[in-house]
Amino acid sequence: MNFIEKLQKRWTENKTLVCVGLDPDPSRFPEIIGDGPDSIFTFNRAIIDATADLVCAYKPQIAHFAALNAEDQLKESIAYIHSEYPGIPVILDSKRGDIGSTAERYAREAFERYEADAVTVNPYLGIDGVKPFTDYKDKGVILLCRTSNPSAKDFQDLLVGDKPLYECVAETIANEWNENNNCALVVGATWPEQLGKIRNLIGDMPILVPGIGAQGGDLEGTLKHGVDSNKNGLIINSSRGVLYASKENDFAAAARNVVLQMNQAIANTIAAI
Amino acid sequence: MNFIEKLQKRWTENKTLVCVGLDPDPSRFPEIIGDGPDSIFTFNRAIIDATADLVCAYKPQIAHFAALNAEDQLKESIAYIHSEYPGIPVILDSKRGDIGSTAERYAREAFERYEADAVTVNPYLGIDGVKPFTDYKDKGVILLCRTSNPSAKDFQDLLVGDKPLYECVAETIANEWNENNNCALVVGATWPEQLGKIRNLIGDMPILVPGIGAQGGDLEGTLKHGVDSNKNGLIINSSRGVLYASKENDFAAAARNVVLQMNQAIANTIAAI
Repeated sequence: MNFIEKLQKRWTENKTLVCVGLDPDPSRFPEIIGDGPDSIFTFNRAIIDATADLVCAYKPQIAHFAALNAEDQLKESIAYIHSEYPGIPVILDSKRGDIGSTAERYAREAFERYEADAVTVNPYLGIDGVKPFTDYKDKGVILLCRTSNPSAKDFQDLLVGDKPLYECVAETIANEWNENNNCALVVGATWPEQLGKIRNLIGDMPILVPGIGAQGGDLEGTLKHGVDSNKNGLIINSSRGVLYASKENDFAAAARNVVLQMNQAIANTIAAI
Repeated sequence: MNFIEKLQKRWTENKTLVCVGLDPDPSRFPEIIGDGPDSIFTFNRAIIDATADLVCAYKPQIAHFAALNAEDQLKESIAYIHSEYPGIPVILDSKRGDIGSTAERYAREAFERYEADAVTVNPYLGIDGVKPFTDYKDKGVILLCRTSNPSAKDFQDLLVGDKPLYECVAETIANEWNENNNCALVVGATWPEQLGKIRNLIGDMPILVPGIGAQGGDLEGTLKHGVDSNKNGLIINSSRGVLYASKENDFAAAARNVVLQMNQAIANTIAAI
């Protein structure tokens, strides 16, 4: 199964649009995790074991590993998901972007070294920096469109003719870059109206939606404006809101509860759409 | 000395605008390097020793290490430059870009883990994804503006009002983001006219210019349109053209010759401006 098929299977069979972001921060780990050389993997494994039946994907964020010299624990965490919970796609959130010959190396990093199912990519360099990723036909390439942060507006909202840059980005990707049907977009949950405009432009292409939880995104608005024609189509991510739901030794159970609540809130909202 | 001061000292005292890009590719290494676990560092060290008196900076490109599980050899290469040739600034070319809390991790990766003097960053996410880098006041933050690749035009040339996006990016960085005077821009040598327009917008801010050598950039046009008011201001990078000037065991001497020729060609052109 390729990335999109894995995702669709999780959406329909496990009935979940929730993605858990793995952004390990040892300063926020509960005491029981300790501070040994494997503590990041130990923490991730507990979160994964507590949530695997409830998610459509996991999204490890590479900076949280790279800043701590923990590439081995990133690889170990992804391998653990593949071996223990096959079928759950793993999105490596690295927002890479470079010219063609270098983009090939980044694609190799994501798909061969780490065996991720999908990777986030910055579109600013244009198609020749993206094609080395999309050439991996079974893998997903999730391109930044309208990001969740406040200063997303600095450039993404600049008007090109009568429409904002992020709409040009969405249209170009949907109409010109998606030859292998393996592209998706990143649109923050902090911008539900923009999400609706983007959904109208791209058909049923999947959208990764960060910003729920710690960033204060709007879950109801996200669903109302963002679902595809099958009332799926979204990868709704929460990282800190799930991982650090409790600082105590019950952190994994607390994480599970947050995901259960998200799934319930999503189901209730979708039923009313 | 901070990054900009180090750079200015190399420009004026060593009279060189040339930066050597460290993009190690073991399939192109000469036989003498072998294929041992330290081969990437061994190759880099030979290139560094052969060119250190002739360059204003080194620019290791992180994907070439990350694809090969060679973070340790990246760290070792940067540490070697700092210990053996103090005063030569090292630019970590990683084109990072993410929301604030994650950008902090990327800044830590570049400046603390690898001890780079500067890092390349993608501006698409806006100022809150860049500030965690510029907050390191002694470090340089080199933002993508008009990249060297053919499809740079896909988004960077879109007209915002009457000017292309890359000019908006240049102006915003120069006028709003550069509070700590530690920003610089990336503009490809493949676009000398655009480089001239950008130079007019940003004053004497340094510009990293990739695309000379294997990518066929225009050295004469780059200098004519790109130098600052002191006839410096450029970090003219060549990677593959220097590293792989010879496939034989004379590769380091051949690399030195290419850099010598670049310095000579630059001096001749600048003398005529």
